Amino acid sequence: MALSEIKARRRSDYKFQLEYRTRWSDNDMYDHMNNSIYYFLFDSVVNTYLINHCKLDPPTSTQVGLVVHSHCDYLAPTGFPAIVDLALRVNKLGKSSVTYEIGVFERGTEEPKAVGEFIHVFVERESMKPGTTGMKEDLRTGLAAIQSSGKAKL
Amino acid sequence: MALSEIKARRRSDYKFQLEYRTRWSDNDMYDHMNNSIYYFLFDSVVNTYLINHCKLDPPTSTQVGLVVHSHCDYLAPTGFPAIVDLALRVNKLGKSSVTYEIGVFERGTEEPKAVGEFIHVFVERESMKPGTTGMKEDLRTGLAAIQSSGKAKL
Amino acid sequence: MALSEIKARRRSDYKFQLEYRTRWSDNDMYDHMNNSIYYFLFDSVVNTYLINHCKLDPPTSTQVGLVVHSHCDYLAPTGFPAIVDLALRVNKLGKSSVTYEIGVFERGTEEPKAVGEFIHVFVERESMKPGTTGMKEDLRTGLAAIQSSGKAKL
Amino acid sequence: MALSEIKARRRSDYKFQLEYRTRWSDNDMYDHMNNSIYYFLFDSVVNTYLINHCKLDPPTSTQVGLVVHSHCDYLAPTGFPAIVDLALRVNKLGKSSVTYEIGVFERGTEEPKAVGEFIHVFVERESMKPGTTGMKEDLRTGLAAIQSSGKAKL
Repeated sequence: MALSEIKARRRSDYKFQLEYRTRWSDNDMYDHMNNSIYYFLFDSVVNTYLINHCKLDPPTSTQVGLVVHSHCDYLAPTGFPAIVDLALRVNKLGKSSVTYEIGVFERGTEEPKAVGEFIHVFVERESMKPGTTGMKEDLRTGLAAIQSSGKAKL
Repeated sequence: MALSEIKARRRSDYKFQLEYRTRWSDNDMYDHMNNSIYYFLFDSVVNTYLINHCKLDPPTSTQVGLVVHSHCDYLAPTGFPAIVDLALRVNKLGKSSVTYEIGVFERGTEEPKAVGEFIHVFVERESMKPGTTGMKEDLRTGLAAIQSSGKAKL
Repeated sequence: MALSEIKARRRSDYKFQLEYRTRWSDNDMYDHMNNSIYYFLFDSVVNTYLINHCKLDPPTSTQVGLVVHSHCDYLAPTGFPAIVDLALRVNKLGKSSVTYEIGVFERGTEEPKAVGEFIHVFVERESMKPGTTGMKEDLRTGLAAIQSSGKAKL
Repeated sequence: MALSEIKARRRSDYKFQLEYRTRWSDNDMYDHMNNSIYYFLFDSVVNTYLINHCKLDPPTSTQVGLVVHSHCDYLAPTGFPAIVDLALRVNKLGKSSVTYEIGVFERGTEEPKAVGEFIHVFVERESMKPGTTGMKEDLRTGLAAIQSSGKAKL
């Protein structure tokens, strides 16, 4: 996805949203949210969605999601004590894997501060490898509900 | 403060409150919020209060707060994806130092999950030592507003 | 333990030691290691000792340690990119619980930057409550090996 | 860079290396190092190099590095209490920006656990924008010393 497309993202491009308060320790020496913290937030919005809408139960589910790739473009700084909206969509839904896109928006502004993607491969908890029948139906149904109707851009 | 008193704390014992969403990474191997994370939350509610009600501006203020002591009693587990209420009061207000107490309550329950205290000494940014005239008036006024009317218990 | 005793701690007062490199994100806005990070380091030295010397295997052990109390006194700042020595001793060894003391020393200096304690209660993994026979023998033996010969001071 | 090339990376493909001990809190519920933590380590090896070999002084330098993009491919799990070697090279050195590549190797194994890149743009501290003359000579010289002799692959 071209940087111009990334910058053009708005909350309405995403189908699920969660509000997160930043923390004092999120800011580094330069008084803005450290680049690594964005990935903590990505993990949090995705796993909240998986738990609340896809019946994932991290301590007991027979399938769990492993991150195999992640990336992020940082467009403008944000940081404590701002409140951010984490906006989530599914860009690609495969047999055992899913590509999420997350936009980070600061409360009160329209343009994204950062946009990233990461890929989960759902594996069997015992073997830590994908099963032959792919992800469970509850996962697929839940993830399909926030899939972008257009073609994946990233 | 006796453990029985700590367990008896309720939201109404505190004068300022902030809601915080937990993060995926807050949970450790045992599927509950790691003990260290509570201190991140303490820092966050206190600094939010200092910024919004005591005119602290971390990158520019001539006085900043250094933590010289902290402690916490953990009463019951909480963890992602719970939402917690961080409740704050001032237990002791000295010339240059302040003792905060923070109660951590899980959304939907009455009893605290953890109660902790920490001590800030306000120092001059340049020297990193307390000034001769103590903390600035904006700090003192703001902190006095959430001081417990009873005597400090901890 | 009086603050004067805490300040007098040296590496030789501890029976186990581990070197840790600080991380960029450990420093907060004020360019020193954030107070919460010390607790991450306490957890790390203690769990490394439990795994390597007390046969703890976090994902499978039938007993696990829950933190019920922690505290820390901060004496002087340290921070990225310093290397710190984490020095560990056991101050009190009960039937199901243990009180650890950790001293944080910066590479190249004698005086501690911080000294803290925390209490683990070993519980049965299934019930999350202490068993009737207390902690397992491997834990007791390993922890006794780093117990302070003098009486507990804190 | 194709995944096959990423998997073929060895410590000898990098010109600077730093050993890092993992922390208890690095592991998430699934008992392996959380994907976000890799970025904390990337930041740490890069900033250590900038401080020790390029004369960066984070609290005072007139130019500082802002992360505008980061990505990582996760090949195999690692986690606490492993010791990891962080191997660093520069893949591209522009007028004001630099692309780092970092390989994460577990002590005692040859193949990388993860390989990532991130881009720093050096900006003037006051304006938070790149200066007209690009990065300072100390930065350029230090970074050129670990630049890959081959063409950038990623």
